[in-house]
Amino acid sequence: MKSFTPPNRILLGPGPSNVHLRVLEAMSKPTIGHLDPKFIELMDEIKELLKYVFRTKNEVTFAVSGPGSVGMETCLVNLVEPNSKVLVCINGVFGGRMKSIVDRCGAEPIELKVSWGRAIDPNLFEDTLKKNKGINVCSFVHAETSTGAKSDIKTLTEIAHKYNCLVIADTVTSLGGIPVLIDEWNIDVSYSGSQKCLSCPPGLSPVTFNERALEFIKSRKTQVQSWFMDLNLILSYWGGSSKRAYHHTAPINSLYALHESLLLLKEEGIENSWKRHKTNGEKLVEELEKIGLKPFVIEDERLPQLTAVTVPEGIDEAKVRKSLLDDYNIEIGAGLGELAGKVWRIGLMGYSSNEENIKACVGAIKNIFGK
Amino acid sequence: MKSFTPPNRILLGPGPSNVHLRVLEAMSKPTIGHLDPKFIELMDEIKELLKYVFRTKNEVTFAVSGPGSVGMETCLVNLVEPNSKVLVCINGVFGGRMKSIVDRCGAEPIELKVSWGRAIDPNLFEDTLKKNKGINVCSFVHAETSTGAKSDIKTLTEIAHKYNCLVIADTVTSLGGIPVLIDEWNIDVSYSGSQKCLSCPPGLSPVTFNERALEFIKSRKTQVQSWFMDLNLILSYWGGSSKRAYHHTAPINSLYALHESLLLLKEEGIENSWKRHKTNGEKLVEELEKIGLKPFVIEDERLPQLTAVTVPEGIDEAKVRKSLLDDYNIEIGAGLGELAGKVWRIGLMGYSSNEENIKACVGAIKNIFGK
Repeated sequence: MKSFTPPNRILLGPGPSNVHLRVLEAMSKPTIGHLDPKFIELMDEIKELLKYVFRTKNEVTFAVSGPGSVGMETCLVNLVEPNSKVLVCINGVFGGRMKSIVDRCGAEPIELKVSWGRAIDPNLFEDTLKKNKGINVCSFVHAETSTGAKSDIKTLTEIAHKYNCLVIADTVTSLGGIPVLIDEWNIDVSYSGSQKCLSCPPGLSPVTFNERALEFIKSRKTQVQSWFMDLNLILSYWGGSSKRAYHHTAPINSLYALHESLLLLKEEGIENSWKRHKTNGEKLVEELEKIGLKPFVIEDERLPQLTAVTVPEGIDEAKVRKSLLDDYNIEIGAGLGELAGKVWRIGLMGYSSNEENIKACVGAIKNIFGK
Repeated sequence: MKSFTPPNRILLGPGPSNVHLRVLEAMSKPTIGHLDPKFIELMDEIKELLKYVFRTKNEVTFAVSGPGSVGMETCLVNLVEPNSKVLVCINGVFGGRMKSIVDRCGAEPIELKVSWGRAIDPNLFEDTLKKNKGINVCSFVHAETSTGAKSDIKTLTEIAHKYNCLVIADTVTSLGGIPVLIDEWNIDVSYSGSQKCLSCPPGLSPVTFNERALEFIKSRKTQVQSWFMDLNLILSYWGGSSKRAYHHTAPINSLYALHESLLLLKEEGIENSWKRHKTNGEKLVEELEKIGLKPFVIEDERLPQLTAVTVPEGIDEAKVRKSLLDDYNIEIGAGLGELAGKVWRIGLMGYSSNEENIKACVGAIKNIFGK
């Protein structure tokens, strides 16, 4: 066995996205202790930078030491008590994952099923809340990574609050790529991932909790079922006080990387990042349509940072992906779940979202098609 | 805010330990996808290398995508069913953490409390199993990071098996530093951490499960309470089959680092690593005794890779640690839990375990003491 040398991929899948050299360099700086005063300073800066990207003043805004799925589970296990009712919107793989977690919390998931590739319909959402008494938490995905569909979480949150529900919004694929306005939209709890539009290596999940959510958690009647994900315990380490206590050993170097990737985003300006993602996403669709490929999601509900493309009849989709990877060093994503074999997912996220990559990708597909 | 430049610390605390330049360089290689065939090859190599360090043929040997605490919780939530009885040995912070997790699983933790700083007494262990019918899982810590005490997990496992119990052994601080012979000792389940004697940045938890444990998990009557930690789901990604399915996005670059740190360990030879830790641990105690400092743990139960040192009367222990950090760039650990203020913890783990570090540390303490 030898040291590993990864190929130099252009990452145009559903994440991870390509990582800026500055971020990779930050990650390789010498490890220091998780209670080192210099590291505590870094944690404080990361919290500030995350507040910037989440557009929030929430004090409890930090990075969970695990991938986005751990962020999802952290938000749910803290908010969901056994025997409670949770409205779970399912318009793709990640809504389904939320349901499974709610189930494992001993709560009752009330499902709102929506066609894959479509946004969550606010009217159906309100109907579900009307019909089912006793729901106290609603969860939905802003940008469904499995389909490329965007839901209007501002409106969903307004409705949920009318029915006295807290909301948990999955912003894994949206944060940094399209507006996520936690405070303006009154989102109670949200989790994201480092490896999408933040262009950091995978392994961290930024989260934010507002005061309403924290009060709710404090008034829980039962213990949070996970030790690692119990917010009360995590906050002894990530919390606001100057005296930080050991909870777990943070992934030091991964946090160096997150800090640098957030700095890059701040240097660009988040509005500019949204604009860049929008422009490039529209350009990609335009170019794909020129070679006869059709976006799977209707224009109004389409994410600019992740485009699901319908696989044309008679095409062996896996062969196309293999050729892109082997002959062009380009990774795009396969369909997931019920879309397996039916779509490709082309991501233009974070540092991967640029014109060169659109040209490279569309050009390569065109070549493979022999056009 | 600026890019972060960490100080160049000599890490002689309870982990993280210093990371070899080759490992830091590996970590900064370009990110690739978590389903990239090249990454799958890397995962397979990591599994092989982990089998080497765990001294096991267990097929289910991989790295959990989270710090050691997630490894601990993963092992427990898979093996512990609600309303079952689990013998939890508590001779430090980490046994206490296990108890809290067992509790959160809705099971009954039967505590065997041992003085902090002492090994778990096999006779008391057997007595507890005799007195309490219906225990089916026993958990204990091999190398208590909070005290520096080593327990004889070979003997504990023999006893547990006599009573038809499965064992979960915490080898977070032992793996790579002292012999951990999973197969020879018949350990059913074990978890470790990347940042101790493996000298990799924190964020990953190597785990191993034998056939007996896997059968037990398959025959569970209830669902594992954590989605992220459900072994049945994780194995769709890390399992043996050539077709890997998406479960979560692995922390790609952290796994590059783990691969390289395991390669380094294999190049040295694990027996040589054990020997190096032993020699340096003994040398440290010798040098500390010369300046009047006493090890907290009796010789027979003392870990070579982590030495708890009794803080002498009249010494402000925090001030000494602060001076070591500020004036010498040396990190040592404070006491945890009931040992807070009473001991220092000096680690010589992995790449940090060398003669220069012993000289630097003891020399610095001597200076601070004004001797």
